[in-house]
Amino acid sequence: MRLSKSLIPTLKEAPAEAEVPSHIYMVRGGYLRKVAAGVYSFLPLGWRVVQKISRIIREEMNRAGASEVFLPAVVPAELWQESGRWEQYGPQLLRFKDRKGGDFVIGPTHEEVIVDLVRGDVKSYRQLPLNLYQVQTKFRDEMRPRAGLMRGREFIMKDAYSFHADEADAKREYKNMYDTYGRIFARCGLAFRAVEADTGAIGGSLSHEFQVLAETGEDALVACDNCDYAANVEQAESRAEAGQGAPPATKPVSEVHTPGQHSIAEVSAFLKRPSTALVKTLIYLADGKPLAVLVRGDREVNEIKVRKAMGAKEILLATDAAVREVTGAPVGFIGPVGLKIPVLVDAEVAAMADFVAGANKVDTHHDGVNLGRDFQATKVGDFRQSAPGDHCPRCVTGTFKGYRGIEVGHGFFLGTKYAAPMKCNFLAADGKEHPMIMGCYGIGVTRIAAAAIEQNHDGDGIVWPVPIAPYEVALLSLQPNDEAVRVACDALYDELTRAGIEVLYDDRDERPGVKFKDADLIGLPYRIAVGKKGLAEGTVEVKARRAPEVSKLSVTDAVAQVVARVKEERR
Amino acid sequence: MRLSKSLIPTLKEAPAEAEVPSHIYMVRGGYLRKVAAGVYSFLPLGWRVVQKISRIIREEMNRAGASEVFLPAVVPAELWQESGRWEQYGPQLLRFKDRKGGDFVIGPTHEEVIVDLVRGDVKSYRQLPLNLYQVQTKFRDEMRPRAGLMRGREFIMKDAYSFHADEADAKREYKNMYDTYGRIFARCGLAFRAVEADTGAIGGSLSHEFQVLAETGEDALVACDNCDYAANVEQAESRAEAGQGAPPATKPVSEVHTPGQHSIAEVSAFLKRPSTALVKTLIYLADGKPLAVLVRGDREVNEIKVRKAMGAKEILLATDAAVREVTGAPVGFIGPVGLKIPVLVDAEVAAMADFVAGANKVDTHHDGVNLGRDFQATKVGDFRQSAPGDHCPRCVTGTFKGYRGIEVGHGFFLGTKYAAPMKCNFLAADGKEHPMIMGCYGIGVTRIAAAAIEQNHDGDGIVWPVPIAPYEVALLSLQPNDEAVRVACDALYDELTRAGIEVLYDDRDERPGVKFKDADLIGLPYRIAVGKKGLAEGTVEVKARRAPEVSKLSVTDAVAQVVARVKEERR
Repeated sequence: MRLSKSLIPTLKEAPAEAEVPSHIYMVRGGYLRKVAAGVYSFLPLGWRVVQKISRIIREEMNRAGASEVFLPAVVPAELWQESGRWEQYGPQLLRFKDRKGGDFVIGPTHEEVIVDLVRGDVKSYRQLPLNLYQVQTKFRDEMRPRAGLMRGREFIMKDAYSFHADEADAKREYKNMYDTYGRIFARCGLAFRAVEADTGAIGGSLSHEFQVLAETGEDALVACDNCDYAANVEQAESRAEAGQGAPPATKPVSEVHTPGQHSIAEVSAFLKRPSTALVKTLIYLADGKPLAVLVRGDREVNEIKVRKAMGAKEILLATDAAVREVTGAPVGFIGPVGLKIPVLVDAEVAAMADFVAGANKVDTHHDGVNLGRDFQATKVGDFRQSAPGDHCPRCVTGTFKGYRGIEVGHGFFLGTKYAAPMKCNFLAADGKEHPMIMGCYGIGVTRIAAAAIEQNHDGDGIVWPVPIAPYEVALLSLQPNDEAVRVACDALYDELTRAGIEVLYDDRDERPGVKFKDADLIGLPYRIAVGKKGLAEGTVEVKARRAPEVSKLSVTDAVAQVVARVKEERR
Repeated sequence: MRLSKSLIPTLKEAPAEAEVPSHIYMVRGGYLRKVAAGVYSFLPLGWRVVQKISRIIREEMNRAGASEVFLPAVVPAELWQESGRWEQYGPQLLRFKDRKGGDFVIGPTHEEVIVDLVRGDVKSYRQLPLNLYQVQTKFRDEMRPRAGLMRGREFIMKDAYSFHADEADAKREYKNMYDTYGRIFARCGLAFRAVEADTGAIGGSLSHEFQVLAETGEDALVACDNCDYAANVEQAESRAEAGQGAPPATKPVSEVHTPGQHSIAEVSAFLKRPSTALVKTLIYLADGKPLAVLVRGDREVNEIKVRKAMGAKEILLATDAAVREVTGAPVGFIGPVGLKIPVLVDAEVAAMADFVAGANKVDTHHDGVNLGRDFQATKVGDFRQSAPGDHCPRCVTGTFKGYRGIEVGHGFFLGTKYAAPMKCNFLAADGKEHPMIMGCYGIGVTRIAAAAIEQNHDGDGIVWPVPIAPYEVALLSLQPNDEAVRVACDALYDELTRAGIEVLYDDRDERPGVKFKDADLIGLPYRIAVGKKGLAEGTVEVKARRAPEVSKLSVTDAVAQVVARVKEERR
């Protein structure tokens, strides 16, 4: 493609709202333009990236035996009412009425539609298993869309749904998809990690996230340095220290005056006790009912674990006013002694003796608190967030390392969560009717584009991996008005194109400095710069975006080297 | 693809609402399932057809120099308010509010979004021309969706928009797209015709429709048998007979009693006068104001021509009550004499003398009516529908032949219709700011699939042309449980697949009769049937879906012949 013939409008500045590198560079590089909050137009370069990612996904899904379908974006409300999600989904679900007053949604995900399709056309175990997928524009009406494609409202997703006669077969396919996802992200040229994940609102009992590793990732991950275990910290199990019990108490509870010392750090410094000798008490509302959660001073509460332990739909941190109402004291001075609400105690706390906690009295803490003697636990369990350095709960010897990641894929083992309420049944070999067992598997197609940039960029722009770069080679004509340069560039463009290489030919009437800057910003993997001076010496300049070295090569060698390297890096 | 591994649920019966062959066969053949009125799920076979059509479109659009983009489906209302279409578009435009109360539409077409994009990033004539296209799911909230994909509410469209510095360049690109569309439909393997068309609500001054010819088409077309002229009857010019004038009147106006004779056919039979001696008077409301239109008894009024002549936004046939109020007489007895409203007279009527018309009195007609003497014309002009047999308005000698077609593509020369109100300006070579000149070019992607079936089917099912068939060859295993048949089929499947042929392998445990019927219904271009008996003789059966002959060939010859024929028929 000749740059002058397409719409590739690079910008010197990004809009103020763009804060992450992918957002900044996609706007500055002419990949993306905003139409409304969380709603974007893909320009030619951006759309080529999305198409390349989609092609890899389709090839691998087809190879894995799945069949591509295309379900409607506009979905009648009845299907969502049948599954119960019409009530459950909240305001992210865009609802509207058509001209005849019928209720519809713009599908943010398509379990209901696919289940309705399959229950209508699949009646026998002989038609199972089945894995159907689509690549489709979705809409989720996020409250705070942000970071460009990272959390948009309109986005493209690959969603797959599998249907099975029994759980063993569903688990076989779950593994098949797990492996397929690994191949997809590897073929995209991305460093990623599959981690155990929370099943969230979509439900089910087995779930993995595929995370593209990047420092700017919004998800915190831990992975064992010894075994395979890796998980989102939202989900990561902690090694149960229970069983070892607490040492015996050595002193009575006493009040200590801690004027204005609210935080663990302040109390720790004031009392000259390490944060591991302190206990943090947080008040939550589980479906509106208050409870206290105790974790060691240096720990964070894992709200998902608390929600699951309470069997609650929703967990909210209590407001300052609610804390005062429940405990009689302000935030910063809360402790377990004397509380009249359920108390969840993290196993690590249950192994402590003589600890410091709030006294439920302003400017006052307790010292010498002991579980069992001074207060009772409603439940002892794993309520803390895992963190790097923790012992691995699976193997004995490993410890966690921390990563940050961007979730780009998610697999769920759904069981009969949708099939049962929607009566998606089949006649089994035994002649009886059973609900189908399902799995679902999503990939954020447009999000991969952003995640790839978060992982692959520098201060000058994007550094695309070859498999998903919009073009593979940038051909820069440094003096487009010089006849020899023009002829050489045109010939190079034709030769590379004939060799099957995708070339973006910067034929604009611009200065070399502008072209080099734009090439770095756009970030194609290889660059060939053709200038008057070099041509006189019989050379052109070849540079990989990823490496600093510039090679001066003959045109023949430049073509040979670039073709060979690009083909090697395709997957 | 093995049929047993995918979802290809053929049906014996189509739903009652399916009336046209494409709808019937897409449902029965397992291509399509309804989700809501005018909203469908594409099953694997249906989606493959759509993807093949899309691929041809993309290849030809790219070859023509256009760049693919992807604009959002969800569009903020402000853009539509700016162009004025927020008010003009009517209830087909699906409007909704997001969670924050902002007004949005689901784009039924994207002139506003693309103009907004281009005006933001294109400032100079040096960035022009530009042709941007996308392939996207659209939604139009049709009052009466019908005929499956023919007139759905959710559908896939290829929409392209071109931007130019001057009208000559815009017309060059219009021609480029005209030629490109011709290549696209030819490559799809379809018989089609480009016709001059009405520009409709979208506006502009030059427009062609691309019509796939089919007896079931909803559009009536005429084409000259001598020159290139072809048009939708909505648009077709009629040869002006004006200038020749009417013969002199030979008798006075007289009343004739015509009890209960309402229609032209009834009056013609009753008075024993040919319908060409009668004049039809119709009362319309142009933006609410009544007018009369006169055409010869055997003609139909062309409402588009009337609307344009009146400069009206909307033309509606008056209700019976409104007719009675305006004329004092019931429908069937209306005529021009004594009317107090504007009277539009078709040129053909202006060339008649002594004609019969209604007398604006129940059960009464006038004979001997003459224009100029008995009533005056507000306008004489071309107000009739063209019809087969008419003289061509362009060449002198030709006459019109009639066709029926399905509109699958449409090109519009837009001029500054959108660029001017939305201030999509550029700095021209003369240093001054001008609005860009635009063209837009649409293709109904999903509609092509339906139109192809309307053109290519028989009583047993679809007869796909090779380029857009979901698979190219049906391989039928007639005794899937016979080891020799299974081995032979598996080998054939592998060999054809390796040769690059797309094979649908019917490996189901079904009777041969079921498989032959399903193969005809699904309609793949070639069929290879492998049975025990044939194999014993060393042969398999090869049949083209389009022809009745069945050839018994050796496996080697069957492969060679099918591969050669499929490759020849690809485009």
